[in-house]
Amino acid sequence: MNSDSFAACERLVSPAYVRQGCEARRSHEHLIRLLLEKGKCPEDGWDESTLELFLHELAIMDSNNFLGNCGVGEREGRVASSLVARRHYRFIHGIGRSGDISAVQPKAAGSSLLNKITNSLVLDIIKLAGVHTVANCFVVPMATGMSLTLCFLTLRHKRPKAKYIIWPRIDQKSCFKSMITAGFEPVVIENVLEGDELRTDLKAVEAKVQELGPDNVLCIHSTTSCFAPRVPDRLEELAVICANYDIPHIVNNAYGVQSSKCMHLIQQGARVGRIDAFVQSLDKNFMVPVGGAIIAGFNESFIQEISKMYPGRASASPSLDVLITLLSLGSNGYKKLLKERKEMFSYLSSQLEKLSEAYNERLLQTPHNPISLAVTLKTLEKCHDKAVTQLGSMLFTRQVSGARVVPLGSVQTVSGYTFRGFMSHTNHYPCAYLNAASAIGMKTQDVDLFIKRLDKCLKTVRKEQNRDSDVSGVDNYDKTEDVDVEEMALKLDNVLLDTYKDASS
Amino acid sequence: MNSDSFAACERLVSPAYVRQGCEARRSHEHLIRLLLEKGKCPEDGWDESTLELFLHELAIMDSNNFLGNCGVGEREGRVASSLVARRHYRFIHGIGRSGDISAVQPKAAGSSLLNKITNSLVLDIIKLAGVHTVANCFVVPMATGMSLTLCFLTLRHKRPKAKYIIWPRIDQKSCFKSMITAGFEPVVIENVLEGDELRTDLKAVEAKVQELGPDNVLCIHSTTSCFAPRVPDRLEELAVICANYDIPHIVNNAYGVQSSKCMHLIQQGARVGRIDAFVQSLDKNFMVPVGGAIIAGFNESFIQEISKMYPGRASASPSLDVLITLLSLGSNGYKKLLKERKEMFSYLSSQLEKLSEAYNERLLQTPHNPISLAVTLKTLEKCHDKAVTQLGSMLFTRQVSGARVVPLGSVQTVSGYTFRGFMSHTNHYPCAYLNAASAIGMKTQDVDLFIKRLDKCLKTVRKEQNRDSDVSGVDNYDKTEDVDVEEMALKLDNVLLDTYKDASS
Amino acid sequence: MNSDSFAACERLVSPAYVRQGCEARRSHEHLIRLLLEKGKCPEDGWDESTLELFLHELAIMDSNNFLGNCGVGEREGRVASSLVARRHYRFIHGIGRSGDISAVQPKAAGSSLLNKITNSLVLDIIKLAGVHTVANCFVVPMATGMSLTLCFLTLRHKRPKAKYIIWPRIDQKSCFKSMITAGFEPVVIENVLEGDELRTDLKAVEAKVQELGPDNVLCIHSTTSCFAPRVPDRLEELAVICANYDIPHIVNNAYGVQSSKCMHLIQQGARVGRIDAFVQSLDKNFMVPVGGAIIAGFNESFIQEISKMYPGRASASPSLDVLITLLSLGSNGYKKLLKERKEMFSYLSSQLEKLSEAYNERLLQTPHNPISLAVTLKTLEKCHDKAVTQLGSMLFTRQVSGARVVPLGSVQTVSGYTFRGFMSHTNHYPCAYLNAASAIGMKTQDVDLFIKRLDKCLKTVRKEQNRDSDVSGVDNYDKTEDVDVEEMALKLDNVLLDTYKDASS
Amino acid sequence: MNSDSFAACERLVSPAYVRQGCEARRSHEHLIRLLLEKGKCPEDGWDESTLELFLHELAIMDSNNFLGNCGVGEREGRVASSLVARRHYRFIHGIGRSGDISAVQPKAAGSSLLNKITNSLVLDIIKLAGVHTVANCFVVPMATGMSLTLCFLTLRHKRPKAKYIIWPRIDQKSCFKSMITAGFEPVVIENVLEGDELRTDLKAVEAKVQELGPDNVLCIHSTTSCFAPRVPDRLEELAVICANYDIPHIVNNAYGVQSSKCMHLIQQGARVGRIDAFVQSLDKNFMVPVGGAIIAGFNESFIQEISKMYPGRASASPSLDVLITLLSLGSNGYKKLLKERKEMFSYLSSQLEKLSEAYNERLLQTPHNPISLAVTLKTLEKCHDKAVTQLGSMLFTRQVSGARVVPLGSVQTVSGYTFRGFMSHTNHYPCAYLNAASAIGMKTQDVDLFIKRLDKCLKTVRKEQNRDSDVSGVDNYDKTEDVDVEEMALKLDNVLLDTYKDASS
Repeated sequence: MNSDSFAACERLVSPAYVRQGCEARRSHEHLIRLLLEKGKCPEDGWDESTLELFLHELAIMDSNNFLGNCGVGEREGRVASSLVARRHYRFIHGIGRSGDISAVQPKAAGSSLLNKITNSLVLDIIKLAGVHTVANCFVVPMATGMSLTLCFLTLRHKRPKAKYIIWPRIDQKSCFKSMITAGFEPVVIENVLEGDELRTDLKAVEAKVQELGPDNVLCIHSTTSCFAPRVPDRLEELAVICANYDIPHIVNNAYGVQSSKCMHLIQQGARVGRIDAFVQSLDKNFMVPVGGAIIAGFNESFIQEISKMYPGRASASPSLDVLITLLSLGSNGYKKLLKERKEMFSYLSSQLEKLSEAYNERLLQTPHNPISLAVTLKTLEKCHDKAVTQLGSMLFTRQVSGARVVPLGSVQTVSGYTFRGFMSHTNHYPCAYLNAASAIGMKTQDVDLFIKRLDKCLKTVRKEQNRDSDVSGVDNYDKTEDVDVEEMALKLDNVLLDTYKDASS
Repeated sequence: MNSDSFAACERLVSPAYVRQGCEARRSHEHLIRLLLEKGKCPEDGWDESTLELFLHELAIMDSNNFLGNCGVGEREGRVASSLVARRHYRFIHGIGRSGDISAVQPKAAGSSLLNKITNSLVLDIIKLAGVHTVANCFVVPMATGMSLTLCFLTLRHKRPKAKYIIWPRIDQKSCFKSMITAGFEPVVIENVLEGDELRTDLKAVEAKVQELGPDNVLCIHSTTSCFAPRVPDRLEELAVICANYDIPHIVNNAYGVQSSKCMHLIQQGARVGRIDAFVQSLDKNFMVPVGGAIIAGFNESFIQEISKMYPGRASASPSLDVLITLLSLGSNGYKKLLKERKEMFSYLSSQLEKLSEAYNERLLQTPHNPISLAVTLKTLEKCHDKAVTQLGSMLFTRQVSGARVVPLGSVQTVSGYTFRGFMSHTNHYPCAYLNAASAIGMKTQDVDLFIKRLDKCLKTVRKEQNRDSDVSGVDNYDKTEDVDVEEMALKLDNVLLDTYKDASS
Repeated sequence: MNSDSFAACERLVSPAYVRQGCEARRSHEHLIRLLLEKGKCPEDGWDESTLELFLHELAIMDSNNFLGNCGVGEREGRVASSLVARRHYRFIHGIGRSGDISAVQPKAAGSSLLNKITNSLVLDIIKLAGVHTVANCFVVPMATGMSLTLCFLTLRHKRPKAKYIIWPRIDQKSCFKSMITAGFEPVVIENVLEGDELRTDLKAVEAKVQELGPDNVLCIHSTTSCFAPRVPDRLEELAVICANYDIPHIVNNAYGVQSSKCMHLIQQGARVGRIDAFVQSLDKNFMVPVGGAIIAGFNESFIQEISKMYPGRASASPSLDVLITLLSLGSNGYKKLLKERKEMFSYLSSQLEKLSEAYNERLLQTPHNPISLAVTLKTLEKCHDKAVTQLGSMLFTRQVSGARVVPLGSVQTVSGYTFRGFMSHTNHYPCAYLNAASAIGMKTQDVDLFIKRLDKCLKTVRKEQNRDSDVSGVDNYDKTEDVDVEEMALKLDNVLLDTYKDASS
Repeated sequence: MNSDSFAACERLVSPAYVRQGCEARRSHEHLIRLLLEKGKCPEDGWDESTLELFLHELAIMDSNNFLGNCGVGEREGRVASSLVARRHYRFIHGIGRSGDISAVQPKAAGSSLLNKITNSLVLDIIKLAGVHTVANCFVVPMATGMSLTLCFLTLRHKRPKAKYIIWPRIDQKSCFKSMITAGFEPVVIENVLEGDELRTDLKAVEAKVQELGPDNVLCIHSTTSCFAPRVPDRLEELAVICANYDIPHIVNNAYGVQSSKCMHLIQQGARVGRIDAFVQSLDKNFMVPVGGAIIAGFNESFIQEISKMYPGRASASPSLDVLITLLSLGSNGYKKLLKERKEMFSYLSSQLEKLSEAYNERLLQTPHNPISLAVTLKTLEKCHDKAVTQLGSMLFTRQVSGARVVPLGSVQTVSGYTFRGFMSHTNHYPCAYLNAASAIGMKTQDVDLFIKRLDKCLKTVRKEQNRDSDVSGVDNYDKTEDVDVEEMALKLDNVLLDTYKDASS
């Protein structure tokens, strides 16, 4: 409403009340102005009312929402279904232009603003999370793997001779495929066992660089967040190698934004050596639906080059999700989530330790991994072949999601490369184990239910295996009832065992 | 509700009414069952009630919506903002798995079903639209350009020696960049002028294949839908060349699903020669937001290979949009849209013809282009340098979106390649012109407003140029008033002229 | 966004595009301003984007949406469920104040504006629908019956001696109860049969006025819209009697806004005699959910008196519904609905005539009833007792809603008053019959399905009754199949017969 | 989805995953079944997913959502605007039938169930809140005042001679008007001052009963929740009088459900004497939008009689709101709100005490009022006439809503009755005062902001009045800044002073 409208309002109801309403409106506008001017995540989250007003105001700046528009092109932001229009808040034109995913669209000033503001907010959050000297970043509507591919494809143009990507092993398919898809040959560097931890073999990396010749190496592709007992790569040292040999360095920081340790590693790497880009998932760090990633770096123009490699427009949906989320949370809300995650990590850790001891197992000592934990399954693997897998299947049917059992000796071939000991990041880890992670948004209730169900499953598996063995120390975990889920699970146990192998990989 | 619930209902209100309600419920279930069993687009569109019931039923099959779930992984479908959860109907897990964008996710049976059904529906629609023998397809949450890149990256693994992509010129940046991004060298084949039309130079193509050697050619990259006076490539003949020389053939069918002619060309090409994949935009063909494409082909396993090249999970958002849209429309609704588009093309064509004659211009004769039209701007280009650009700018400020003026002699460099006569698909087209297209969803009102505003702009430009010249024949187009938009436009005219060049490219 | 915000936007994306977005925004604001200034229904319906912007702007003027508000009262517009807040667009304070349902609320300028504007729009529509001299009206969140009660309660204070309400009989319970609830004694005036029509017995009315003494009569309570063969009351003559004897006149115009005839009667009545208030349903005339009515009249202060009789605040929900609906439709959209209803009436009429003749029945001649039609069921009632009821039940189970069979001789007691021939508006109508109506929003498809199903039911009932009789003329109505519904109905037929009696009353 | 659909699903994705999804679905169904079978508020709140599934399932049982329905009546649940349909979850038919607001609608099994379940849940909550022996209740879409009117109108039929309602004075217009509107003569019983409290004058009540004659008294109309220094009526004693003289007793329990004291009074009254019905607001007790009330009582058939007095159908909107709210909260959530309110009452009380002492005022001792508090404004009233009113106005412009200043000597005439000392529930209260209440949903932040702003206003008013007086003790309340609201308020202060009188009444 404009001033004429307010004048009309004052004729309908008392001017004093209209004026107060009007003033109240300015509080919303004030928040919006601050956001647009500063480009930073507000400290306190916005309420839905301000948020929707803002989205609405942006949307009506897009030509598909112009009341007088007539479209005679092939892409006019027309929408057949009103359900679809509404769920996108009437942002239809996506982001970017044919040349550049960060470019402004003449037809869509609102969507363009949305894109710019989102990138600006996300940059602010990356700084807040620990990478203070990050220079530039953008949200891309592709998952982490494909975003890594885009980084590699961009590097190709700068290093036409290079064929190899040096990659400290991490057993996650999409990281590996990101290199294959980009058309490069991954050079796998096996990890070294230090105590229980699997860590980067720096010597092997440097030796390989020398062997292949730096010019033939497209980049080093390192990883922060990962499943224990692997721990984040030694980023500082890798960054120094990259600097010394003038090799680009791309970091897969998939779910590392949520951990100050991972972010610190990146900040340090960039300070003492070379990091060209680091890539993180939107869904895993910001609690939004799967489908977006952030590509960030310390050199503004290199990040722009990557954004110019994306051919064509792209979905605004992941940007919209993260924008809504960050404005709702505010930076204080996000910090609170980070803090709670850390606390939950300690809690999960202590609970797992307690439980594992009751079963003569132990929590692996992986102090460098700030997110994922591992508990040995030695007693299980001794029993019979399938016991470890069976535990995984049982947890799955009991609606424990995300727990991962890693049996020994599994072999997998991915795009022609054979990995022994697949899932364990090494050819021969000393024992089978179970992973659990404390990721952002986890609640005490998740931990408690998990521990209870895990206890129950372990007890059941044990009983089947060894009717004589002593499981007396275990009962104390089984006080409260969890009947519904158990009942359901029993029905499914047999059905699922076979399928499970596939599920957990 | 289950039978126990209905029994309880019958105790609360009359059994007869509950039973009738119950029966009515079966009509919804019946439609859902048919969809799941047949995998085809229903003839009649569903009403919102059935649609939302269906989405709701799918969503509660995803683990993030299990009431008893506890998550201990790093990706559990947690959502921070309820606004975000709602707008995605609580589908949070995206589609695909690390290995394959078409794979089933154990944690997300509902999202996996959504993905399968969408692909199945889209396949049905592609058949209905004219490519009857299509074997397989999938929706990918990337725009057309990046999807083409994915196709090229997949081919790389099958043709390791190949460096070149043969590409009959079409002046649209993202098509061109799709090849650059994939790391290949585009070999541009200039078009030949036949009458007013720009058509594929088949001899040049074949000569180039021979010159480079078939094994060094990754593929031929042809185009159907495009701006007049370029017309769809001679797909049949290109397909035959591909078959003869054993070269893959990738077709950019960006907005061609909406045209039976484009679809027919693909069907014929596949029948007489070779087409490996054809790629089409979701937004341009199905009236959904920007951000998705369909990759389709005649060989089931090749399409699967492409889907396996996408590393990691992906956004379900474009799939959800097209699913909602197709279920709302039904195949009858979609056919109706296709029919109306054709009629609108005739109407736009006749109106443009009439208007152009009044200004001593003419509609270019481009009978092979079923979507885009071009009107000469000869009289304008004679006047002064900027007259053509000025017309474009004026149309833009008058909220005519999608009209494109093409001046002579513009030169543009894209990724190091220089294009003379850029935007006109040829180095020297005989004259400047204006494009307008009849795309799906266009309304009579769009055409009428466009013609009225174009008339007004032409008159204004003329007056400025030649105060003596006779423009008397023109007035009849100017009966009704369009005051608001005009008033607004006048304010902006001067501001925009400079920016416009950028906008229209 | 304010001008500072737009300035910030221009620094983020091109000023030219922001400015165009800004101008486009003014088109929305322009519509809003016009509405507020004129208080009339816009000719063309608004699109959802303008509508939601408007509602959003109003809502943030309510104190519960002030960002800095602190509430220390007992009614602060707090909402526990965000689902609830959203579905009310965050209008929580309702309408009116303790003293007056039309009063402005200091805490809720937005809700107060919503209320004023809705009443203003509705007044505009009543004029447009034919009552040009209406002076005032307001929406009340109660159904027609309770709204009539409110009118009677208001009159009590003006006519303390009066005990009786004179009421030409119409067999609809809530009209009757509206008088009982208000504490008055209804004096039922039986209708007279003229041809097939049942019409007001004016002499009986006037005789009764004289008999009771005008001062003892609270008012005459007449009716426009009703089921055939009753027709709207002779409003002009009644209004003249009221004027002559100085008796108030309240008109039940339940679903009469949709009929120009009913509205014309009211306009004429007011012109030549006396009408104090006329009451109409929101849901039946404006296609919104059940629960609201409009109380309108020709004397501004009397309508205000009624609005002041409602003690306490009231739900804004019906006002919001009708506001959204009228702004979406525009006056042109509403006029179109009125026109279509008229056409549908003719169509239904001709189809029923054709069908009835095929079964040796006839359409009753009720030219004064513009909405409802009646078809005789003479042949049915001859057969056996339950045949008429059975037909009703069968239609119900076949998902024909709103069709009403009226058997002879049903007797009902309502609040201690016994009505013979209940449902037929008279003690002894010559025959049983079936009602069907053409109400606003009806579609051709409704008529066609109804005729098909009625035909099928009649045939079935006949067959059961008389295996010899000739029903050969009937088959032509039975071409297309309607299998699903039929199948479902067969299952329910037996169950429902008993319940049906209750359902149809 | 039915079993056929699930079978089809299993062919599309792995049966194991579908089966788990299926099982998960049962958890939702289980909750729904429990609700329908027990009719009680679930202990734990439902998540939105279950809630919306439930509403969806109910809605498709209404005939307007039948896919095969054809409507030929005058009220078919057609909706013109999809926005409207959606916001009502497609429940269009309202609740009740012409005869009875609690009756089942044949056309709308779903809406009928919604109505029954809501009433059942609300009954459960009333018991939980303290009235354990309540027998029956129903939600009515009218505010408290009109609901009281309906009770009185129902009693009229049982006590045809009665003209008077005995009413211990409470200065709230709609309570008073509820009697006037029903056509009765309120007999006002002035309160007696006991300490600071205003309490029921039981002797005066009994004397008046004897004076008027019990048969001439329709009922005693008492009140629980009210503004301090009035306190809830002596319900037990009034109930005994009613029992002794055989007079009905209607209790206005407007916002008393939130207070265990008010509920206890009702429970006790019913135990030792007579209470026929007690009426409570939905919005004030359940944090839903204004517009509904609950009429409850201890005699099932009397409550049914009231429900049968409502002529016609009614809006389902308030029922839907309270249903959503209670299912979201669960009984545990509601209990938590009640507990927090109590704590907030103590907090507000202590903060007000502290502040008032700093200004030489005091908190009135009103231990019987569990919700509202009063602070004297003696020093203000001494200064000048308008000082008290000015304070009220200042608080209003500083976005303190719900605070109420009560000056001495205000006189108001309502429906012809003159009240001296209006707003203070007595002709001459010893001093002016300010009210604040701790109502359900209040937050610590509300209290803190209120105290801060009140402090600031008092200081400002004082300074204006007496530039010499010592206000040094006050500064400690003024530490944190509240700049925005203050700035805005300054602008409005002058404008509002005049309007405010109206606002606060």
